[in-house]
Amino acid sequence: MNKKAVFIPVALLVLILLNPLHGDEGLWPLNLVPKSILKSRYNFEATPEWLTHLQLSSVRFGGASGSFVSPFGLVLTNHHVGRGIIQNLSTDQRDLMKTGFYARTRGEELKCPGVELSVLQKIEDVTGQILAAEKPGMTSAEAAEARKSAFASLEKQGQERSGLRCAVVQLYSGGMYHLYKYKVYTDVRLVFAPEFAIAKFGGDPDNFCFPRYALDICFFRIYENGQPLSTPQYLKWGTRDLEGGDLVLASGNPGSTGRLLTYAQLEFLRDTYYPFLIEDYQRRRALLQAFGRLGTEQSRVALAPLMSVENSLKAMIGYRSGLLDEALMDKKAEAERDLRRAVEGAPVLKRDYGRAWDEIAAAQKAYAVLFKPLQLFEQGRGFDSVYFGYARTIVRLAEESKKPDGDRLKEFQDANLASLTRRLLSPSPIDDNLEIAKLAGSLAELREDAGTTIEVRWLLGDRPPEDVARELVSGTRLKEPGVRKRYVDQGLEAVYQSSDPMISLALLVDPLSRGLRASYEKEVEAVEVRNGALVTQALFKLKGTSIPPDATSTLRLSFGVVKGYVENGVRIPFATTFKGLYERSMKFGDKPPFELPESFQAKKSALRLDVPLDFVATCDSIGGNSGSPVVNRKGEFVGILFDGNIQSLPARFVYSDELNRSVMVHFQGILEALKKVYDTAPLLDEILGTK
Amino acid sequence: MNKKAVFIPVALLVLILLNPLHGDEGLWPLNLVPKSILKSRYNFEATPEWLTHLQLSSVRFGGASGSFVSPFGLVLTNHHVGRGIIQNLSTDQRDLMKTGFYARTRGEELKCPGVELSVLQKIEDVTGQILAAEKPGMTSAEAAEARKSAFASLEKQGQERSGLRCAVVQLYSGGMYHLYKYKVYTDVRLVFAPEFAIAKFGGDPDNFCFPRYALDICFFRIYENGQPLSTPQYLKWGTRDLEGGDLVLASGNPGSTGRLLTYAQLEFLRDTYYPFLIEDYQRRRALLQAFGRLGTEQSRVALAPLMSVENSLKAMIGYRSGLLDEALMDKKAEAERDLRRAVEGAPVLKRDYGRAWDEIAAAQKAYAVLFKPLQLFEQGRGFDSVYFGYARTIVRLAEESKKPDGDRLKEFQDANLASLTRRLLSPSPIDDNLEIAKLAGSLAELREDAGTTIEVRWLLGDRPPEDVARELVSGTRLKEPGVRKRYVDQGLEAVYQSSDPMISLALLVDPLSRGLRASYEKEVEAVEVRNGALVTQALFKLKGTSIPPDATSTLRLSFGVVKGYVENGVRIPFATTFKGLYERSMKFGDKPPFELPESFQAKKSALRLDVPLDFVATCDSIGGNSGSPVVNRKGEFVGILFDGNIQSLPARFVYSDELNRSVMVHFQGILEALKKVYDTAPLLDEILGTK
Repeated sequence: MNKKAVFIPVALLVLILLNPLHGDEGLWPLNLVPKSILKSRYNFEATPEWLTHLQLSSVRFGGASGSFVSPFGLVLTNHHVGRGIIQNLSTDQRDLMKTGFYARTRGEELKCPGVELSVLQKIEDVTGQILAAEKPGMTSAEAAEARKSAFASLEKQGQERSGLRCAVVQLYSGGMYHLYKYKVYTDVRLVFAPEFAIAKFGGDPDNFCFPRYALDICFFRIYENGQPLSTPQYLKWGTRDLEGGDLVLASGNPGSTGRLLTYAQLEFLRDTYYPFLIEDYQRRRALLQAFGRLGTEQSRVALAPLMSVENSLKAMIGYRSGLLDEALMDKKAEAERDLRRAVEGAPVLKRDYGRAWDEIAAAQKAYAVLFKPLQLFEQGRGFDSVYFGYARTIVRLAEESKKPDGDRLKEFQDANLASLTRRLLSPSPIDDNLEIAKLAGSLAELREDAGTTIEVRWLLGDRPPEDVARELVSGTRLKEPGVRKRYVDQGLEAVYQSSDPMISLALLVDPLSRGLRASYEKEVEAVEVRNGALVTQALFKLKGTSIPPDATSTLRLSFGVVKGYVENGVRIPFATTFKGLYERSMKFGDKPPFELPESFQAKKSALRLDVPLDFVATCDSIGGNSGSPVVNRKGEFVGILFDGNIQSLPARFVYSDELNRSVMVHFQGILEALKKVYDTAPLLDEILGTK
Repeated sequence: MNKKAVFIPVALLVLILLNPLHGDEGLWPLNLVPKSILKSRYNFEATPEWLTHLQLSSVRFGGASGSFVSPFGLVLTNHHVGRGIIQNLSTDQRDLMKTGFYARTRGEELKCPGVELSVLQKIEDVTGQILAAEKPGMTSAEAAEARKSAFASLEKQGQERSGLRCAVVQLYSGGMYHLYKYKVYTDVRLVFAPEFAIAKFGGDPDNFCFPRYALDICFFRIYENGQPLSTPQYLKWGTRDLEGGDLVLASGNPGSTGRLLTYAQLEFLRDTYYPFLIEDYQRRRALLQAFGRLGTEQSRVALAPLMSVENSLKAMIGYRSGLLDEALMDKKAEAERDLRRAVEGAPVLKRDYGRAWDEIAAAQKAYAVLFKPLQLFEQGRGFDSVYFGYARTIVRLAEESKKPDGDRLKEFQDANLASLTRRLLSPSPIDDNLEIAKLAGSLAELREDAGTTIEVRWLLGDRPPEDVARELVSGTRLKEPGVRKRYVDQGLEAVYQSSDPMISLALLVDPLSRGLRASYEKEVEAVEVRNGALVTQALFKLKGTSIPPDATSTLRLSFGVVKGYVENGVRIPFATTFKGLYERSMKFGDKPPFELPESFQAKKSALRLDVPLDFVATCDSIGGNSGSPVVNRKGEFVGILFDGNIQSLPARFVYSDELNRSVMVHFQGILEALKKVYDTAPLLDEILGTK
């Protein structure tokens, strides 16, 4: 230990004093919850028992969230989270999206093939083990390789020892590593879903908006060994009204935020990333809308993908609006300038961290060159078809399986194989006409953006993309899960000799695609991680370790208060009611997307119209939080998060609790609808424990 | 030990008695030379010293042969073996093929880039180690994998321990494995070459014929550390005349024979293999001839490849003629029937070996399905260009380097990498117009034979193969060895992202190509090796172990006597003379390929016309033996093998010494020409040790 007095420059002191957290900011890992803030601000004791109960009651649902709400494996999530599954269970004869669904008995519950839910059991700090894998003198890329290999062995080991699926989670851009251990469930059945019309009431216009009137819920049940899963850890239903100012806490899997990104990274997102993606989503929205207009069946099959595209598009435009906000960017620039100045002022900090920002900025330049082809090839935007996705997975699975675990592409490492294979072999229905339309649209885009590459010239020649897409889709046999299974079983040789055109396409573009990914991982990602970790360390040293990490699609706790807000001078109350729902529908002539389903038309008189339907609170959230249970101090379920208001979108980069709100379905609204509109007595008994 | 008396069925005894070796048959590994035969038949003691001296004086020259003929690293081989090198040293300004070459001083010797010669130092029996790698219960394919991995580790280990290049050689179709250790030399310089016109006098018409009048020789010198290699082990020049009946022995690297193949394998060769290859060589000959007619320079650059194609074509037609010979095939069928009957008659043999022939026959059926695409893709016959070869090597090198040694394709294992890289980086000149012509021709063939594969459709579309070939050749930058080097250095990522069209082509067809190879190795080769070994074991048990193994492109000794023969009632003496040369030239009006070079025209009067030029002997040989030194009992050099007569070609499958002859340049003819025609006193002094 150096015993000399530590010299703290004035600028640094100023920085420490001037940078408190922004209000209720924070998507907190369950083992990093700031108990002191909860205690001091809300006089709330987040005991280990309280947190563990919430963690074990929280369900990871695809990339989103859900919760156990009965001791019998009953899972509540958003309708829009379960939408793909519900659409897959539908046919042109039985459209569950349109009619809704309720299994009055367990025997009627519908099996959802290919679905996988998981519950986080444990978190372990493995930062030391990961950082020990990096040796002094390694380049960024070498360090990335070393980490990747350490990830793989920790995950595999963890899995072998615990029987749980393990995943290393990188926090603070590489400043911290935790091993997450999940219990995985694969027998999932649909219990209840309302009609799409009420679940998504207000459609795209109301999306990311408040006031709001959507019953965005559905229920599934997990089975194990043919029996409903026993879930002693579940959330009891709320027992008293929510009031303004009440503390509420949300537990879910927010996807990603960019609050710790450097200014150069934000510029990249603003100038390169979002413009390209927004344009791509706009193209796809137009295509899906046009396809839906071809007929009833086309409209049915295009619905779920269209909703998903519309949601992403609106979100990205919102995110980008933050980056286009000069005040926000100035604030970011200023904060970074202050931090860098503080680092520059302390010789040791300067030596260790001084170059990190410039390194990251240089990586953004490299990224800009790679970005478009990376999106088209590796992200598959040039080949927009589930068939291409299957084909590429088949090709890579065969190739990667031959390699030692630590050398494989991340998604093909042992720890991830079961899940990957399940997705690959999913029997979800595929509409070939939709696939042709999507693929043709993306191939046209591909020709425009990458038409000079030899791969694209070979594939398209002078032919219309529609012809090529039709040939590929009508030629492939990958629709049959059994055919996909056969490739998995037979391995590389069968893949290499396949005459399936979709497999050939995947083989054709894979080298280029892998090359782009390798370059990205080496020249961009590895540099961002190494230097991002340095920026974080500098931050920790200067501001303490109480900064929340950016979201990483893993379980997080956020908290805030039930609270309305003022928008353009208009006071918006924190909750809406069924009364407002009927009024809004009438205002738009009961036309889509404001059309009420028959059930709600028929049962209007039965409903207590003043019961709250949706509400808002200041707790932090981002895409992936959809389906998060929101609880009160007692840990009781009081709402299910399904959206953020439009003002919450720029919070991807800078949180502000002045206008930023998460939007929930109110626990009382859910009860009222189940009881009066859907007459689901057994389900009500189950969640209320009344039987 | 089972102490019961061994029961030998009568049929077996008959077999043992009826199957002596056919005359001087046998291409014997240097450690398996049948000393008793040499002793009893020729009263010759092949002492270990005698054999070691010959072994260390023998040089492996590409796929062919040569020998040290002075203590200063001087290597003698055939002009047609050195032809590619001599052509590579030529330009349109200096055509060494036409003019010949002589370096009167060492300073004038011409460096031959990319050439690699080697000398076999040691042979070690590793049969036990290889067979131990195969575990009971393994499938043929698994056993093949296990052997491959054992090969790789033995070779790598051997190399590390001895500093020598090591290669496991599979003998008797898998019945025996030896590890060969080579010293490798890479600084090779041209010393002397006669004019192509005399080296290849008689051209294609006289090829595989006798009487013959070719001075098919040239001299190189190996350097080490900038100095001529010291070679105490070298062959002294003959000191007395050769006479009819003299024992002579040849030491070289015969490529392959098929004398131990089963009847089903011979049928495959006859009905599938040769017909396809003969047609392909005919197409290529026509193409090269047409190209050569375009002008002097075109004629020059097409010469070496044309000679090579013509030679292969004539050889294959000859090989196939054996298989079309009903008497020969009946003899083969009968021998196999007898052997199988003997096996069937002994229960233990039946149990262990009984099914081997049927298994091999089944593998031939699998081979027939794979064969054509395998030739077109994996053997590269559909992409006839050195550029494609370079591109594929680059692609595979990058991919294979990522794998553990034992998992790689054979040619990319550590033991073979230095040599492979040297070939890849060779600065040999490339004529782009010739490449375009060759590639276009093979692409047209590819479209005809594999036009329905998606790879070919993508590559060719509806375009003329000439256009595609021109685009590929004019687009590639692989002409520059430096560019190839850069890919080697930068590895997989650079390859995957390359925009070089030839690299893209290699990437496009590689999966299919690899798949075909994997299928071949698994379904054909592995089955042939496993069951070929069983057939050999049965043969060993029934006929003893004195059967020579088939040729495997490794050092072998063969022996026989200097002897003429009777063809169509005409007695053909064992040697030709310079007199015959002039007569034959005159008979054809001194027109190509019977045109004499100026030197021979000018020096006719100086020559002693009765000096022997070429001669024949009964010793066994096959392609790859070209350049083999032929020695007398004293181990003195008496000739250099350069051909077999037309009757020797069917001996690929069944040897007969009645008409079967190897053709040599006579040691006295070489001296006479060097002295009287070329006036190469220093060279003569060196080989005769007269200075």
